[in-house]
Amino acid sequence: MKFEVTILGSSSATPVYNRNPTAQLLNCNEKFYLIDCGEGTQQQLIKYGFKASKIDYVFISHLHGDHYFGLIGLLSSLHLNGRVKPIKIFAPEPLQEILALQFKYSETVIRYPIEFVATQTNEPVQIFENADLVVDTFVLNHRIPCTGFKFTQKKRLRKLIVDKLESEHIDIEYYPLLKRGVDLNLPDGRIILNKDYTTDSDTPKKYGYCSDTLFDERYFGSITDCDLLYHEATFLHDMLDRANVTHHTTALQAGEIAKMTGAVKLLIGHFSSRYKTLQGLLDEARSVFENTELAIEGNTYTI
Amino acid sequence: MKFEVTILGSSSATPVYNRNPTAQLLNCNEKFYLIDCGEGTQQQLIKYGFKASKIDYVFISHLHGDHYFGLIGLLSSLHLNGRVKPIKIFAPEPLQEILALQFKYSETVIRYPIEFVATQTNEPVQIFENADLVVDTFVLNHRIPCTGFKFTQKKRLRKLIVDKLESEHIDIEYYPLLKRGVDLNLPDGRIILNKDYTTDSDTPKKYGYCSDTLFDERYFGSITDCDLLYHEATFLHDMLDRANVTHHTTALQAGEIAKMTGAVKLLIGHFSSRYKTLQGLLDEARSVFENTELAIEGNTYTI
Repeated sequence: MKFEVTILGSSSATPVYNRNPTAQLLNCNEKFYLIDCGEGTQQQLIKYGFKASKIDYVFISHLHGDHYFGLIGLLSSLHLNGRVKPIKIFAPEPLQEILALQFKYSETVIRYPIEFVATQTNEPVQIFENADLVVDTFVLNHRIPCTGFKFTQKKRLRKLIVDKLESEHIDIEYYPLLKRGVDLNLPDGRIILNKDYTTDSDTPKKYGYCSDTLFDERYFGSITDCDLLYHEATFLHDMLDRANVTHHTTALQAGEIAKMTGAVKLLIGHFSSRYKTLQGLLDEARSVFENTELAIEGNTYTI
Repeated sequence: MKFEVTILGSSSATPVYNRNPTAQLLNCNEKFYLIDCGEGTQQQLIKYGFKASKIDYVFISHLHGDHYFGLIGLLSSLHLNGRVKPIKIFAPEPLQEILALQFKYSETVIRYPIEFVATQTNEPVQIFENADLVVDTFVLNHRIPCTGFKFTQKKRLRKLIVDKLESEHIDIEYYPLLKRGVDLNLPDGRIILNKDYTTDSDTPKKYGYCSDTLFDERYFGSITDCDLLYHEATFLHDMLDRANVTHHTTALQAGEIAKMTGAVKLLIGHFSSRYKTLQGLLDEARSVFENTELAIEGNTYTI
């Protein structure tokens, strides 16, 4: 099952050096989840060959513009392009008022349902579940209320050993039960032990998304053992004072967080406009946590 | 004196085929005026090598998102990049409320003064004047209140025939008076007739900007004799019904308007996403008005 994330924006605050404000597209089993939506996200989707129409869920971490100014344009374009299926937005509550005001003055009545779910920013909470995925929020420490997201694959069904089942002429009507781990007493008297006819499913994977935050141990418990941990790394560590004032993280700290929380792989982004090239940030994170990559726009990372 | 306009966005409604929503940058004597500001305008400014910091005036025609969704991001970036000098925005009144709401929830207190001037949409009115330029609004006929803008160069000073003035040892302290057309009786008894020592200034040029509108003779009087007339041409004329329903103009009509109003040159833009290539629109406008060009992003047009 596909579980991967494509970077659409990697810049902090302002677009610069061909880097755009934050947005990511999560593909879980060919369902598409947009995480943050900075200005120009719809142009970035087009640039990298994605259809905005496939997005059914949007997660906005907080209401600094570089994380949501592209949403109103994206929603408007979906409307103009004839969307009828609903979209669900998880975001801080005031976003609903902001969107409504802009629709009001453009006299736009959106043709598709927008279901708005206010994220709450006081404690971690599960906000979403479908057949593929569970999404939990957690509380980041930023200048304004800010939510991190953890995307966890659902436990998959067991895998059938089809050759064996076929050679022993076990009817396919039993397959769904076997996938669910059931042992069977067949009418002909055979006893089918599940462990002999199935193998374990793939281990569910976890993607942690920490957009804008101060290094703060209180959220580390929410991002343990991520297969891929995205963490902002706005500054090099020589700018720690600036990171503290602006409630951001350094590349070194991002590496430390990945190590402390047991991540398999770290993806750093939200790069300050002061860095024209990013190798220094990568080197710094890798000095603590080797398996680190830069969030490069257009690149897709398997989770 | 430089008087030219650069196209930053040429698409109607939604970005597509590498075309972005409407924005134009007017350069008059190295002062910069932004006309409309669709999503991604700040990225387009960077792409084409312009400094957003040089923009002191913004003119927004109406509150459909493809004409203003980029403004909040641009203003935020100017703030983050340390701007202190004021910016003046001419726009429909509700834009102020929209901007204020977004600044409120991001807890942003903009460090530079934003002077907001509500455009009025019932009748033509002069809204701006400085040493270089006069700007008048006029009423377009769109689905929501929409303002066109006419940018007229100020009458320039007369040009001195410097060789002649120098050879006759006329003191430079008289030059400013001569530039203003004054005849002089010098203390030494010489009579200096202005017409013998100066030539006419360049004729002031006019740029007309008609963003989104139905073909409607009522505004034609406001755009007579433009040296460059920008007019939307969203559709080919075989889509006239659609143009009428959506309050837009066809390429053929744009050509007719240029002809009827005595434009020197016509620039067409705001192309519908149904047109991957634009030659058909250009051919159609040229069939009525030969001196037509397409508004191509990144291109600069002398007025």
